[in-house]
Amino acid sequence: MRIGDKDRLEKSPPMGIPGNQANVKSTLDNGTIVGSSPGSASFFTGGSPGKDGAIERVILTTYPTQSGIRPVPLNWGASSSEERGPVLASRSQTGPINNLKERNAMGAYGGSYSVYHALAVGSGALQATHRPDFTDTEPPVNIGPYPQWSESDMKIVSMDPWGHIPQTVFKDYLDRGYDLRPTIAVTKAHMRLPELAEGTLKQDGVIVLSEDGEINVTKAAVEPVWWLPGIASRFGIDETKLRRALFEDTGGMYPELITRPDMKVFLPPIGGLTIYVFGPMEYLADPTKKLTVRVHDECNGSDVFGSDICTCRPYLIYGIQRCVETAQKGGVGLIVYFRKEGRALGEVTKFLVYNARKRQAGGDRASTYFQHTENVAGVKDMRFQSLMPDVLHWLGVQKIDEMISMSNMKYDAIVGAGIPILERVPIPDEMVPPDSQVEMVAKVASGYFTQGHVPTEAELNAVKGRTWDDIAH
Amino acid sequence: MRIGDKDRLEKSPPMGIPGNQANVKSTLDNGTIVGSSPGSASFFTGGSPGKDGAIERVILTTYPTQSGIRPVPLNWGASSSEERGPVLASRSQTGPINNLKERNAMGAYGGSYSVYHALAVGSGALQATHRPDFTDTEPPVNIGPYPQWSESDMKIVSMDPWGHIPQTVFKDYLDRGYDLRPTIAVTKAHMRLPELAEGTLKQDGVIVLSEDGEINVTKAAVEPVWWLPGIASRFGIDETKLRRALFEDTGGMYPELITRPDMKVFLPPIGGLTIYVFGPMEYLADPTKKLTVRVHDECNGSDVFGSDICTCRPYLIYGIQRCVETAQKGGVGLIVYFRKEGRALGEVTKFLVYNARKRQAGGDRASTYFQHTENVAGVKDMRFQSLMPDVLHWLGVQKIDEMISMSNMKYDAIVGAGIPILERVPIPDEMVPPDSQVEMVAKVASGYFTQGHVPTEAELNAVKGRTWDDIAH
Repeated sequence: MRIGDKDRLEKSPPMGIPGNQANVKSTLDNGTIVGSSPGSASFFTGGSPGKDGAIERVILTTYPTQSGIRPVPLNWGASSSEERGPVLASRSQTGPINNLKERNAMGAYGGSYSVYHALAVGSGALQATHRPDFTDTEPPVNIGPYPQWSESDMKIVSMDPWGHIPQTVFKDYLDRGYDLRPTIAVTKAHMRLPELAEGTLKQDGVIVLSEDGEINVTKAAVEPVWWLPGIASRFGIDETKLRRALFEDTGGMYPELITRPDMKVFLPPIGGLTIYVFGPMEYLADPTKKLTVRVHDECNGSDVFGSDICTCRPYLIYGIQRCVETAQKGGVGLIVYFRKEGRALGEVTKFLVYNARKRQAGGDRASTYFQHTENVAGVKDMRFQSLMPDVLHWLGVQKIDEMISMSNMKYDAIVGAGIPILERVPIPDEMVPPDSQVEMVAKVASGYFTQGHVPTEAELNAVKGRTWDDIAH
Repeated sequence: MRIGDKDRLEKSPPMGIPGNQANVKSTLDNGTIVGSSPGSASFFTGGSPGKDGAIERVILTTYPTQSGIRPVPLNWGASSSEERGPVLASRSQTGPINNLKERNAMGAYGGSYSVYHALAVGSGALQATHRPDFTDTEPPVNIGPYPQWSESDMKIVSMDPWGHIPQTVFKDYLDRGYDLRPTIAVTKAHMRLPELAEGTLKQDGVIVLSEDGEINVTKAAVEPVWWLPGIASRFGIDETKLRRALFEDTGGMYPELITRPDMKVFLPPIGGLTIYVFGPMEYLADPTKKLTVRVHDECNGSDVFGSDICTCRPYLIYGIQRCVETAQKGGVGLIVYFRKEGRALGEVTKFLVYNARKRQAGGDRASTYFQHTENVAGVKDMRFQSLMPDVLHWLGVQKIDEMISMSNMKYDAIVGAGIPILERVPIPDEMVPPDSQVEMVAKVASGYFTQGHVPTEAELNAVKGRTWDDIAH
């Protein structure tokens, strides 16, 4: 956008920053610089003049005290949507509302996909003025509000509990022209898994619709919405330190993480999660109904392509089977699928580690399983399960009867969040691919749940995977 | 980092920006403001004082002419790695090199996963000083260099052709302490797909290793590395416009997109791609060998969970089957898997559209299939296939014998990139789930490849999916 009087963000010294006395005012006429404050707010592009030839201004960052900045109030953890207020992340200055001035969240709707959105706008395929038509997009089932959404200990800090129904509860904002988007969408579907076809599941006409395993499911996609004070406290660090790390260790993403301490909400450009519910959604919040849960972190190589070096897809399928069976017996099943490829290290790091494991002297073995990840990534895991239970609180879950997982990290995070787990169910041995024994044994030795024997150091050395030559043959 | 003399980025007026005369110098002593230039470079955090109690400085953005800024030369499209130079995206100021001053790329290694990396550093789980140990991580097979990496028409603009071997070709930089990471990793694996088990594939001991369908594969994970002048020209827009869109329509991500016109490379925080190669990798570049290809865009609901509303997983499995069969006959097969969920609109948008389709008066039908996506997203697709062929050029592909796809967008992009496609292979009718007929017929009517009849408007209206009631039952 180009500068017009009404759009100007007049310079004023930012709050609480040492050295403001060193600032010097500068005029606001087109062609001169706005903001001599630290990290000042604007920059003139050499090129792309506006319609009337005036040089356009790009606002690099904003400050709490700049006149014109008046974020719509957002009271995280409030018990009603009215008190809470909408999460407004759009910077759009087209239309009746100047979203840049009134937004109360950093980052962008759509997570990573905001980059494709930007390409669509930049290439002219999409008008920046487009606003979604949300007709008929509402969830087909009711979810909450639950007490967990607003308890004083802030059980939900990494997603927006009202994110699935802004079309409804914040309709007045949409009607007034705010660029507001859902961060959650809920729908229903039928699914069919080759492993659960033909007789594995019993047809019941409600959960399992056909002899060949057509399954009725309700699912929801959830984009991350981070309330930074809560994220910081989950990690036991102060918010300033968290904001600096998020800015500096991402190569300088979103300077407002630094310059807008008043904005507490951040929509990071990372993958979110998808839930799959088997049986009535409302049973999830009903402690009288049996609940089976699997929390699964993405592993594309196994989940989609059936790699045999890990147990990911077999465990996911087993989790779905157990969820369906629980639903068929009058309970409910929940699968939570997180987009955290390769323990949130990403697939490139994962493949580098595979190579180091397979090539090491002595061959791939359980005793050195985690070491190779640490050699490359510096840590063995970046999934930060402490944020994971938020989605369970959003769904009103009060206890889990069956947890289809051996992960002590997931178990500790859920129980630590105040949700008891009555039973832990490991994957049946016959579902473990031979080459993934290295991973399984290493995990058990590191504290993963097992009903069996915890291996000794000697045993860890004895459990070997395919050597590089086998693989290369 | 806190300010020390050697680390200072002294203020100097940015180049080519109107109104510099309005700037006022300010001193660099700790506690005062650095840079009154537009979008000036620094900001003092109120909190987190450095070791000696001095207030720390956060560098919000940098400028080409700031003294101290001296990017390592990067000549995109150069024919040798020496001439090309490494892609350096790290901002790390720890260790012997001040990467912030010498880096030549914006964004971050790891794409989206840089955010988890930041959490690891912020939470203290990972030392910012950690550098990867790349021992034994190199690719198990050779890839290139191919002429396509350096032809004058810039065939590769969205990935780093040298990104799989920086451990080798840029070892001297690593040895000198530059924080340099691979953006591609190549490994080998065995995979097993339930649909291709038990007799679907013939065991040959090389490609198919067992009667029950254990498949030998070479795979590579690729993170996006964008050379912005080339990205802009693919979209036919100027680079300044592209940079502004990438900055503003992502909510203000990476101000250096605006302030560092001298930095031409950007590592965006989006998902990349994974390739799966069946048969010898080097055959991909050998026009005498038959090549079967499927380019697949992620659809988690189908690829992993077997949703029956689309043909994604069935088509992927069919593609893998055809790739394996071609490899068994002495050719080679290639699957390219892009992380572009829901046509790069993301899963939230996708589910919103499902609801609108299922609830519309008259029910879900082919004639309104695309309209509902446009109502919500503003466009029917954001995948931008014009960048997709880069990976084919990276692999040295000169022609495709069999393209397992009906997409006219993919076909046009590949042929338009100078790679002939000799045959297009649609999915066999028996593999199309009943409810996905709505999608299939709509796509054929919109220009997707078919060997059969292109439906009329009346026929489009006649092809219906399950109604909401069916779904809800």
